[in-house]
Amino acid sequence: MRLAVIAGDGIGPEVVSEGLKVLGAVAPGLETTPYDLGAARWQRTGELLPDSVLDELRGHDAILLGAIGDPSVPPGILERGLLLRLRFELDHHVNLRPAKLYDGVRSPLAEPGEIDMLCVREGTEGPYVGNGGVLRRDTPHEVATEVSLNTAFGVERVVRYAFERATARPRRHLTLIHKTNVLTHAGSLWSRTVEEVAAEFPEVTVAYQHVDAASMFFITDPGRYDVIVTDNLFGDIVTDVAAAVTGGIGLAASGNLDASGTNPSMFEPVHGSAPDIAGQGIADPTATVLSVGLLLDHLGHADLARKVNAAVAFDLSTRDPRAQVRTAEVGDRLAALAGG
Amino acid sequence: MRLAVIAGDGIGPEVVSEGLKVLGAVAPGLETTPYDLGAARWQRTGELLPDSVLDELRGHDAILLGAIGDPSVPPGILERGLLLRLRFELDHHVNLRPAKLYDGVRSPLAEPGEIDMLCVREGTEGPYVGNGGVLRRDTPHEVATEVSLNTAFGVERVVRYAFERATARPRRHLTLIHKTNVLTHAGSLWSRTVEEVAAEFPEVTVAYQHVDAASMFFITDPGRYDVIVTDNLFGDIVTDVAAAVTGGIGLAASGNLDASGTNPSMFEPVHGSAPDIAGQGIADPTATVLSVGLLLDHLGHADLARKVNAAVAFDLSTRDPRAQVRTAEVGDRLAALAGG
Ligand SMILES: CC(C)[C@H](C(=O)O)[C@@H](O)C(=O)O
Ligand SMILES: CC(C)[C@H](C(=O)O)[C@@H](O)C(=O)O
Repeated sequence: MRLAVIAGDGIGPEVVSEGLKVLGAVAPGLETTPYDLGAARWQRTGELLPDSVLDELRGHDAILLGAIGDPSVPPGILERGLLLRLRFELDHHVNLRPAKLYDGVRSPLAEPGEIDMLCVREGTEGPYVGNGGVLRRDTPHEVATEVSLNTAFGVERVVRYAFERATARPRRHLTLIHKTNVLTHAGSLWSRTVEEVAAEFPEVTVAYQHVDAASMFFITDPGRYDVIVTDNLFGDIVTDVAAAVTGGIGLAASGNLDASGTNPSMFEPVHGSAPDIAGQGIADPTATVLSVGLLLDHLGHADLARKVNAAVAFDLSTRDPRAQVRTAEVGDRLAALAGG
Repeated sequence: MRLAVIAGDGIGPEVVSEGLKVLGAVAPGLETTPYDLGAARWQRTGELLPDSVLDELRGHDAILLGAIGDPSVPPGILERGLLLRLRFELDHHVNLRPAKLYDGVRSPLAEPGEIDMLCVREGTEGPYVGNGGVLRRDTPHEVATEVSLNTAFGVERVVRYAFERATARPRRHLTLIHKTNVLTHAGSLWSRTVEEVAAEFPEVTVAYQHVDAASMFFITDPGRYDVIVTDNLFGDIVTDVAAAVTGGIGLAASGNLDASGTNPSMFEPVHGSAPDIAGQGIADPTATVLSVGLLLDHLGHADLARKVNAAVAFDLSTRDPRAQVRTAEVGDRLAALAGG
């Protein structure tokens, strides 16, 4: 397995090194290549994602990313020029985000019940395409636009992926989240696509919810959800709501998949670079380790992925929720559990 | 005071009649004109919002709306043709949504703390403008677009309104919610506008959060928010998150304001027509009554608004949360409390 590693900024390198520790424990003989990308490189050289680096990344089986970002960089530079560019160039059309409430984890909800959902967020379309502009900037007549682009091709493939995941889960339930009553053009494409693909998966029950209502039900009744499929922007928001109710982004893993397998998929914790706690060895690497689980699963090592997830589940159920996290200790424990 | 009343569908008429009961108790001599609009009229006549009705509405001091919608109507028809058309035609650029956790109300959060925020959502721009389209519909090459339009004029007036509200509140804090790192064009206009207007309100402290992070903090730390200003779509989502953590949309009030006073403003509970419980007399009219409070405040009767809010606060603090709500009984109690 050839793995490209983008440790990134802030706590990125700290959590990534624990992720690699666990990966090494279950899958020895791994070949890793580090790539220096992120705020630090941009500050130093002005470079975000040189074409040569992108080419090299393509030669790997997968990419593990820590976190990108620093308050010193204006908004949008690293996001558009590096993070989103990676997703778009590598055709990461499936943004996979499980949200499970593990035993021993404190939810902010009084009565969370069982939560175990899998959010399938579209990753290459919607308002994320960067199609917008500005007219008469800095005048009282300024107009700024953002265009959401949605294609049958793009929507169909992510919807199909979501149905495939739903049919393999015990509850076989899928919820489309959109805002079809206001965004009628994009909404209609999404609805019709779900309807069409649903016909091929008669065993999957299908529900629809507006994004505003769903954001509420994620809080009042999260147990009702199984697989969720949604657009890029709605997915950005509702997966953070899902992360919040299942214990926070410290535990939220994600995969940016090219489900066709043409390009390497990229795995990363949902949290950011957290510069306020960087370098102190107190960042929780669990989300990165769970992302490693997604990586293993994606590369066909479902057995190894199960080991990693089981290690996390066991460790969380026995952690003292009040104790200060020590990044390396968590990694050591998880590596021992998963590899043992 | 000349009030237009659109009771609407489902539980709309039930909650509106309690709202009017309370309004009558604090402001006698009210002149109300009922307008029959909504799913039922559309089913019967195909009409959504005849121009003549719109003209008549303009002649009133304010509009009270119950709820619009029925599952038999395809998505978008009533929203675009009636609800949003009202907001756009009457230039309701401020969508005001307080979210307060009242004593006695059960939040789904384990440790909600004190929550008292005022969301100021833009109401006439963003992705709500209906500017989108579809190409090659029903083919594998279909493309659907939605355009978010943002103008300096539109953003500035709602941002200014939010600052005015913030400066009149004890904490004097304002949070802009957007997604400036991805929607860089619209995001930049919003950020620059907040920065500019902030200079006129040096007493107001200002924060910024991405919509995904904010949706999480609304759950993990809602007490940090005071006034929030945000775009139409983000506002739709985060106000429902705010409603969820403060006890649900059964309590969420809203005002659609033309802050210039040129057109009548419209007040409505955030909840929908709830056809599943319509006609049973068990809908909670509290959100409508709180909307009546917003209406009174907007028309310059701050003293009467305080009475209505105090009645609601007292009633909620003494309600048995397990008891079945009886729509008319709640209205009777609130009318007696507010008018007494
Ligand atoms: C950093 C940002 C571009 C990104 C997104 O909006 O997708 C992040 O919020 C995420 O969810 O991975
Ligand atoms: C019904 C719909 C058009 C509306 C909106 O999206 O604004 C509703 O969700 C609301 O928040 O008032």
